[in-house]
Amino acid sequence: MVNDEINEAAEALKGFFRNHASGVAIITGLDLAGGPLGFTATSLTSLGTKPPLVSFNVAQGASFYKSLLVGRRVNLHALGLSNLELASRLAGPREHRFELDNWRPDTNGVPVFEGTVAILHCEILQIVEVEQNAVVIVRALDGEQFAPETPLLYHQRAFIAGGELLRSNG
Amino acid sequence: MVNDEINEAAEALKGFFRNHASGVAIITGLDLAGGPLGFTATSLTSLGTKPPLVSFNVAQGASFYKSLLVGRRVNLHALGLSNLELASRLAGPREHRFELDNWRPDTNGVPVFEGTVAILHCEILQIVEVEQNAVVIVRALDGEQFAPETPLLYHQRAFIAGGELLRSNG
Repeated sequence: MVNDEINEAAEALKGFFRNHASGVAIITGLDLAGGPLGFTATSLTSLGTKPPLVSFNVAQGASFYKSLLVGRRVNLHALGLSNLELASRLAGPREHRFELDNWRPDTNGVPVFEGTVAILHCEILQIVEVEQNAVVIVRALDGEQFAPETPLLYHQRAFIAGGELLRSNG
Repeated sequence: MVNDEINEAAEALKGFFRNHASGVAIITGLDLAGGPLGFTATSLTSLGTKPPLVSFNVAQGASFYKSLLVGRRVNLHALGLSNLELASRLAGPREHRFELDNWRPDTNGVPVFEGTVAILHCEILQIVEVEQNAVVIVRALDGEQFAPETPLLYHQRAFIAGGELLRSNG
C-alpha cells in the first residue's frame, strides 16, 4: 500500500477503536533493576483455559517493554468503578505510579494493588513481535477474586462505568 | 505443574475474566466453500497504527478456524446497544446466523452487517497458534464509522450496556 492508503487505514482503525469499548486493567511486574513497574492496559484477553493463558498487546517503544521477558512474573488486576483514580495514575507519569501506600509486593516481589476486583498471578510464556508492537502471552498460575463491582471501561477516549444488564447468558 | 494446579489456575482465570468486562464485536469472513461465516467475539484489540493492526483470539477447535487463512479478508464490526439481538444471533447456532436480511456482501463478498456502529475491512496477516488457541493478527485496509452509540459489553456472563461517563481523556 502507498502512504496515503496506510494513513487512511490507520484513521479507520482509530475510528473503529474509539467506538469499540474495552475493559480496563492494570498490569504490574518488576523492571530489570528489580523496581516496581506497572501500567494501565485495555488489551487483556483470555487465550483459553487448557492451559490457562492470557494475551495483552504492548508497544515495543514503551519504557517497560525491555523488562517483559519470558519466564518473568506479572500480576493482572481487573478494575471496578472504585479504581478510577488508580487507573488514571497508572496511565500517568511513571514517577508517580507507586508513590502511594496502596500496593504491596507479593511473595515474588511483584506489585499487587489493593482494592482491585480480581488479580491473576502469571508468568510470561511467549512474546510475539509484530511490526512496532508485540503480543505478550502469559500463563495464569493462580489468582484471587475480591468483591465484584461495576466494571471500569474505556470508550470514546474516556473512562466510563458499566451500565444496565441487558441479557444474561447464565 | 500437576493437574490440580492447572485446574486451580484455570478456575482463577475464569473468575478473573468474569470480572473483566470486554467490548462485543462481530467478525465475518468466508468459509472455504465461499459461504458467509461470522461469530461474536470479545477479544478484539488494537495492535498499533503504523501499520494499522488488530488482534483477536480464537479456539483452534472452532468450526470456522480452518477458514481463517493468511491473505483472506475479514470484516470487524463494533457493536452498540441496538445490536444486542445481532450479537446473540451470531453467538448462537450457525444455521441461523445469516438467515435474516440484515447483511450484504462487500465488494469481496465478505458479509457486512448493516446497522452496526463501525466496520473495519481487514486482511489476515499472521496466525500465531498457542496450545489449543490462536492469536489472529489482521491488517486494517479501510473502514467506516456510522452513528456512535452506547457500547455493547460482556461482563459476568451477561451482555451489559455502557454506562456513566466518568472521566474524559480529551
